[in-house]
Amino acid sequence: MEESPTGFRFYPTEEELISFYLHNQLHGLKQAKLHRVIPVLDIFDTEPWNLPQLAGELCREDREQWFFFAPMQEREERGGRPSRSMATGYWKGTGSPGYVYSSDNKVIGVKKSMVFYVGKPPAGRKTQWKLNEYRAIELWPTNPNSTGSNVSIPKLRREFTLCRIYVASESSRAFDRRPMEAVARETSIKGGDASASSGSGGRGDASSAGVAAGNAESSNHWETTSLDEIWDWEQLDWL
Amino acid sequence: MEESPTGFRFYPTEEELISFYLHNQLHGLKQAKLHRVIPVLDIFDTEPWNLPQLAGELCREDREQWFFFAPMQEREERGGRPSRSMATGYWKGTGSPGYVYSSDNKVIGVKKSMVFYVGKPPAGRKTQWKLNEYRAIELWPTNPNSTGSNVSIPKLRREFTLCRIYVASESSRAFDRRPMEAVARETSIKGGDASASSGSGGRGDASSAGVAAGNAESSNHWETTSLDEIWDWEQLDWL
Repeated sequence: MEESPTGFRFYPTEEELISFYLHNQLHGLKQAKLHRVIPVLDIFDTEPWNLPQLAGELCREDREQWFFFAPMQEREERGGRPSRSMATGYWKGTGSPGYVYSSDNKVIGVKKSMVFYVGKPPAGRKTQWKLNEYRAIELWPTNPNSTGSNVSIPKLRREFTLCRIYVASESSRAFDRRPMEAVARETSIKGGDASASSGSGGRGDASSAGVAAGNAESSNHWETTSLDEIWDWEQLDWL
Repeated sequence: MEESPTGFRFYPTEEELISFYLHNQLHGLKQAKLHRVIPVLDIFDTEPWNLPQLAGELCREDREQWFFFAPMQEREERGGRPSRSMATGYWKGTGSPGYVYSSDNKVIGVKKSMVFYVGKPPAGRKTQWKLNEYRAIELWPTNPNSTGSNVSIPKLRREFTLCRIYVASESSRAFDRRPMEAVARETSIKGGDASASSGSGGRGDASSAGVAAGNAESSNHWETTSLDEIWDWEQLDWL
């Protein structure tokens, strides 16, 4: 794993996050291996834009999402509410928490989503930085004679959460993503009008000609030519 | 790469697919390494549901998408149209082709999307099997005196395409995916009604209680208890 083949990266399912990573962290297992991928960090002390550089060493190149184990805060251990505020802003929950299921349809955790706001509540300004917080649920066997045989009680583990940080993008499909710098450049060039994509597949269609036009260093036909002008589509039988 | 850490998998960007994989394939480079990830296959001779088991050996475990290099068909080499029909059905294009851009905003390829229909055209029945076909565009320098200095002409490479096969799912975010078997089971249990997800994060919310109820082997409280009944949410300060 020192040198991954091109295109291989950490792209876990929620089940892998909870059943492998969070489970082993909660039980103190495989710590060195785990923390090369997901380090332990007080993420609620750190502005989200400073988190990517603190990601695990095997994920340092990732541009799309970053994972951390967040230890339970002291004030929470003492029975208080966890703090998710820092100098520049705060995390605020969105929607309701939801279950996470294993592939054999057992409940293995709970997921809560948050958005980062810049400023002070309740007047903060919403940003594109988002967070999914996962807590593990483990089943604990009870007295088999109490309500029936083989009954288990779900237990919510709170010592560590596993958090996924990401920047919400316009593209709904991760597969089509382009690096964030390119998207940012495009947005500024187009004056924030990103509504021009057609149904063909999102980002890469001819209506994005403004992108190439803004790329002043390159010197080729793409700057001024649209997709339709390059080829006579009627003659291209694969289309 | 013999033993990838949990959660690491082939999850390439379109730029990696074209600029690394397709480029090397077209130029006959790194063939052994390439084909362990993306093999060469006449995919238009094979029903899509038979393709996953033919994926590259490093991707054999993948459940979400499968990649192949498709060589140009003989009839296309002779100037005809490529055939995308087989005994049980056919691939049909959707939308318009679109450009694919590199991270420095240069056009590197063209992408075309298709859907598999079961039956004979034009009366086939649409399936959930989809395909993205990528062709590389390479810039060839022209006579520098013709229209200006350092001018390049885009050239569409046709000897191989790179195809991504996948099954369209209801979940718009790949991150939230569950294994296909679980989704299929859920769909059949719920009678195809998948409109009940709330805004919290898709698949894992309490409205999916029907899933656990259908899981007859497990014997715990999840079968009959909703998320709200397990805990008093008001007391859970992390919510």
